[in-house]
Amino acid sequence: MHQPDLHDAIARLRSRSPLVHNITNYVVMNTTANALLAIGASPAMVHALPEVEDFAPLAQALVINIGTLSPPWVEAMEKAAVAANVAGVPFVLDPVAAGATRYRTEVSLRLLALRPAIVRGNASEIMALAGETGAAGKGVDSTRTSEAARDAAAALARQARCVVAVTGAVDYVTDGARMTGIANGDPMLSRVTGTGCMATALCGAFLGAGLTAFDASVAGLAVMGVAAEQAIPGAKGPASFQVALIDAFHALDDAALAAGVRLR
Amino acid sequence: MHQPDLHDAIARLRSRSPLVHNITNYVVMNTTANALLAIGASPAMVHALPEVEDFAPLAQALVINIGTLSPPWVEAMEKAAVAANVAGVPFVLDPVAAGATRYRTEVSLRLLALRPAIVRGNASEIMALAGETGAAGKGVDSTRTSEAARDAAAALARQARCVVAVTGAVDYVTDGARMTGIANGDPMLSRVTGTGCMATALCGAFLGAGLTAFDASVAGLAVMGVAAEQAIPGAKGPASFQVALIDAFHALDDAALAAGVRLR
Amino acid sequence: MHQPDLHDAIARLRSRSPLVHNITNYVVMNTTANALLAIGASPAMVHALPEVEDFAPLAQALVINIGTLSPPWVEAMEKAAVAANVAGVPFVLDPVAAGATRYRTEVSLRLLALRPAIVRGNASEIMALAGETGAAGKGVDSTRTSEAARDAAAALARQARCVVAVTGAVDYVTDGARMTGIANGDPMLSRVTGTGCMATALCGAFLGAGLTAFDASVAGLAVMGVAAEQAIPGAKGPASFQVALIDAFHALDDAALAAGVRLR
Repeated sequence: MHQPDLHDAIARLRSRSPLVHNITNYVVMNTTANALLAIGASPAMVHALPEVEDFAPLAQALVINIGTLSPPWVEAMEKAAVAANVAGVPFVLDPVAAGATRYRTEVSLRLLALRPAIVRGNASEIMALAGETGAAGKGVDSTRTSEAARDAAAALARQARCVVAVTGAVDYVTDGARMTGIANGDPMLSRVTGTGCMATALCGAFLGAGLTAFDASVAGLAVMGVAAEQAIPGAKGPASFQVALIDAFHALDDAALAAGVRLR
Repeated sequence: MHQPDLHDAIARLRSRSPLVHNITNYVVMNTTANALLAIGASPAMVHALPEVEDFAPLAQALVINIGTLSPPWVEAMEKAAVAANVAGVPFVLDPVAAGATRYRTEVSLRLLALRPAIVRGNASEIMALAGETGAAGKGVDSTRTSEAARDAAAALARQARCVVAVTGAVDYVTDGARMTGIANGDPMLSRVTGTGCMATALCGAFLGAGLTAFDASVAGLAVMGVAAEQAIPGAKGPASFQVALIDAFHALDDAALAAGVRLR
Repeated sequence: MHQPDLHDAIARLRSRSPLVHNITNYVVMNTTANALLAIGASPAMVHALPEVEDFAPLAQALVINIGTLSPPWVEAMEKAAVAANVAGVPFVLDPVAAGATRYRTEVSLRLLALRPAIVRGNASEIMALAGETGAAGKGVDSTRTSEAARDAAAALARQARCVVAVTGAVDYVTDGARMTGIANGDPMLSRVTGTGCMATALCGAFLGAGLTAFDASVAGLAVMGVAAEQAIPGAKGPASFQVALIDAFHALDDAALAAGVRLR
């Protein structure tokens, strides 16, 4: 296991309050923005072609999520990624349901070619992008475990020269050489829509706070998992869990994160 | 009253976890997905023209809701409905605010011609589709009671050869010959946006679980009404009610549904 | 300080239940609709070009919010504003992140030329529209205090012949001659996405209930601030605060508003 440096990660995020530019899906825009505000970032959702290239350089990180993609949005994602690259702003890619349709796989591969710092997906998505056939998910849900996607994640990381984070019962972060597991979280996360998208955005927030792509990925997924565990006792079901989860992001600090995270 | 067969409806839904393909409105995408996850289905929101025909055959049911329709979305709805028909995937239509503008009425009638298994609407919407003039709602809200729409619902069901569900203080489900009333729910449902859309999606989930269109409609509306009654005691207002409602979907089982439902 | 007439404002709103036509951003559609329902209005989200001119005259007020604007949406906003003007329906403009990109500033100025009754923004947005350079916000967040924007707000109100509401720790409402401050609210409001958009929509609801633009602005912002203060004791973080805030809109009445509001 590679031991990432999460020292003062949340404190750094909160002192910098990075502007995180999101081009994400309709389902999760509200909860993503609220998760980013709760952890201490400054979210903005901007996708219009006449402004996306002007806006991308203003941010400290860009998050691209293809959940409800369509051709004009994909054009905006590509323009934003190029503008971010030129300005030195790192971006995170969430290839939602890659492998489920040819369109999603193709768009994901085009965005991958624009050099994201981090790709965060579930096992089916990561395996699809790594070229493994027959691993397609059920809609947006994975049909494989994250363990089954470890080799695919490492291969994808080497091929795309980025950090790959594959989430599941245990989350794995890899740059193709090193691998860290995060054994936090709760099955209730899979009964709330957009928790994967939220995890992706948290990785983007830590990237915008100046952490390396590897450490930002571990920090984002650790915050997600530890906050989920803190949210469970007060939850009566998935909706009160979601409320408690975002409250927990707001209450979390580095000491609680370090005490709660279980790295492998 | 026709007595539908709801035996083990929730258990069947949870064991099959049907993939429900939604083309719905921006307002309710998040809460619809969360309601579907809470009851045990697997929701996906997919509307892009380059993929909608590839995706529709993968699902067990399609839900089309015109709430925030626009021409490219309507084109996707029509393509998805045709692809679903070809693949034998049943679909549910929610004609939001049909009758309020000519555009909404025309689009609803075009989608109705593509043979939905179920149409779920409020009284104003169902009366507009049945050709009754002067019943237009106030925006998305009905100006008529569901009782006043019973004849229109039966006529529409016969004309469109589908099941029609008209919701209100009492909900009615009819195939044009039979009629079942569901006398559950709470007035607070009308103080939360998208509860009608949520009911439509629940009908789609039970349709995807293999129930007949009639039984799926009764099951979806019964779950909505019984869960609403369970949510009221813990609610301090409409927002905490919405949280408790989705929690109640997750906690509900067939025994509690059978004990709580009041069919007429 | 100008003393607005808020006598029976909430009771009037609830008895009329104005239909409020919203063309707003994807992030806040759900929470805006729920806030409007909780205070007693009837919200509708309608933006399609084939219907927006048919729908605008049916409403008692129009709310235009450019948060996630794009060219087809801007075209709909302009068509709706013109149709509302012709029908005598007043409109409120929320120029989200004006000043952050040239596109947002230009679109805001074009909409301003269509004569809104109220413009509601944060300090950076109002200063940008008043022509002050160098006050650009950080994405959608202001970098200036509302005090610093008082002169710009009054100048903008005189220039655009409308009421301008600038929100912050203290909110200010001005028609260019008179100025009223509302010293309610809580810092937690800035940790929840879309509370500014929600305030704008509340101003629209009171406008639709028949209050003057000045009084509707004060009423909307007073409801927001007083409800926020009522929500804080029951909140464990930003997500439970948002739930409690919408519950508080529903519970609020004119006596509690009068007792809680602090005008300056």
